[in-house]
Amino acid sequence: MAETTDKKQLSIILFSGDLDKAMAAFTIACAAAGRGYTANIFFTFWGIALLRKTRGRGKDLLGKMFKLLLPVGPEKTGLSKMNFSGLGALLMRRLIRKRRIQNLQDLLKLAMERRINFIACQASMKILGFSRSELIDYDLLTEGNAETFLERAEESKVQLFV
Amino acid sequence: MAETTDKKQLSIILFSGDLDKAMAAFTIACAAAGRGYTANIFFTFWGIALLRKTRGRGKDLLGKMFKLLLPVGPEKTGLSKMNFSGLGALLMRRLIRKRRIQNLQDLLKLAMERRINFIACQASMKILGFSRSELIDYDLLTEGNAETFLERAEESKVQLFV
Amino acid sequence: MAETTDKKQLSIILFSGDLDKAMAAFTIACAAAGRGYTANIFFTFWGIALLRKTRGRGKDLLGKMFKLLLPVGPEKTGLSKMNFSGLGALLMRRLIRKRRIQNLQDLLKLAMERRINFIACQASMKILGFSRSELIDYDLLTEGNAETFLERAEESKVQLFV
Repeated sequence: MAETTDKKQLSIILFSGDLDKAMAAFTIACAAAGRGYTANIFFTFWGIALLRKTRGRGKDLLGKMFKLLLPVGPEKTGLSKMNFSGLGALLMRRLIRKRRIQNLQDLLKLAMERRINFIACQASMKILGFSRSELIDYDLLTEGNAETFLERAEESKVQLFV
Repeated sequence: MAETTDKKQLSIILFSGDLDKAMAAFTIACAAAGRGYTANIFFTFWGIALLRKTRGRGKDLLGKMFKLLLPVGPEKTGLSKMNFSGLGALLMRRLIRKRRIQNLQDLLKLAMERRINFIACQASMKILGFSRSELIDYDLLTEGNAETFLERAEESKVQLFV
Repeated sequence: MAETTDKKQLSIILFSGDLDKAMAAFTIACAAAGRGYTANIFFTFWGIALLRKTRGRGKDLLGKMFKLLLPVGPEKTGLSKMNFSGLGALLMRRLIRKRRIQNLQDLLKLAMERRINFIACQASMKILGFSRSELIDYDLLTEGNAETFLERAEESKVQLFV
């Protein structure tokens, strides 16, 4: 069950699965949670790939293809710009480590430590063929839809589509 | 004329003309309208291509080129990721049909049935050389600018840039 | 120091450094400032490249590479779609001039004339190796982080992630 409170809320739709955009989303959400907000991240479309723990099996040829092409978890995501077939993302990861900045895996872990609500979009899961068991284990990870988003967003001080 | 009410409002800037992002925007807007919101979609830049009904004619060589390269309506839009020159979008469309999920054309139709306000950005129309007559027929489709957006957005519970 | 007031506020995270997206963000922010809003633009990641005045020097090989590849200021930014290695952006710039619409440089200047607060994201500056002295001279340009954004965003009528 997702936690709800009378605290200030922040709701982010994480549509992108890109390293750079996901880092921005998690940085904001973690900062909000640190300030005492109830923070909600809605993982939609490519963003759901960040929650995968295994590659899983596709139901049909098309489903298999997309599951094979999409990254599993935060380690393999590309950049939204200058990705150069993954080379840009590789160099960016080195740069982040070198500058001693939290990487995406750290931020994902921090988000769970700060009890941020994760909501995985059901329609996206259906399209891309992801089942709940293929996603990470986290008690605040629930499934939801556009209604779920609106319920939270209308109570939120800050709403962003990333 | 666009409808205004004392109902809750949602305002989405649809800057992207991509299949995946447009589906996300329409899904949220249709859900909001279904919940009784006054929903507004501001079609800006590439997003305006979704409203085209004919290819039209460019005023000059440059204008002709962009009009030729941009898709006409929701059927030909690409994916924001893994498009592979349209192959990714083709496969995604098959996957959506196979999974019995509403495609972009269905969502566009639903948005009009639910009386969502469509506002086409005048500056973008001017840059890309689109005239009103080249866009779809819909009584709630008006032209507007950044001022129009701000008037609505400041009254909106939920605002997103997609 | 950034100005704060009891006026309506607008807060935009400009994550993208693309010509088209940056034009959209600046158009909205300038319109808001024209309506009497306190407008805040948070330049994050690729968006920071828009504020560069010189190419500067990288601290190490990786830093040098990214600084070399990223554009300096608004004149050289590409399009988020149909960029074709810069050709699309070149043609778009011609089209904008031909249609007598404000280009990105005009909008950046207008934003400063309208006293829009510019906040450069410290973490992004650290990752990409930008120092304050390499960014444009503007008394309302300050450095900030996710906390700074949240402080402003929670007081803002309109918040967007571009």
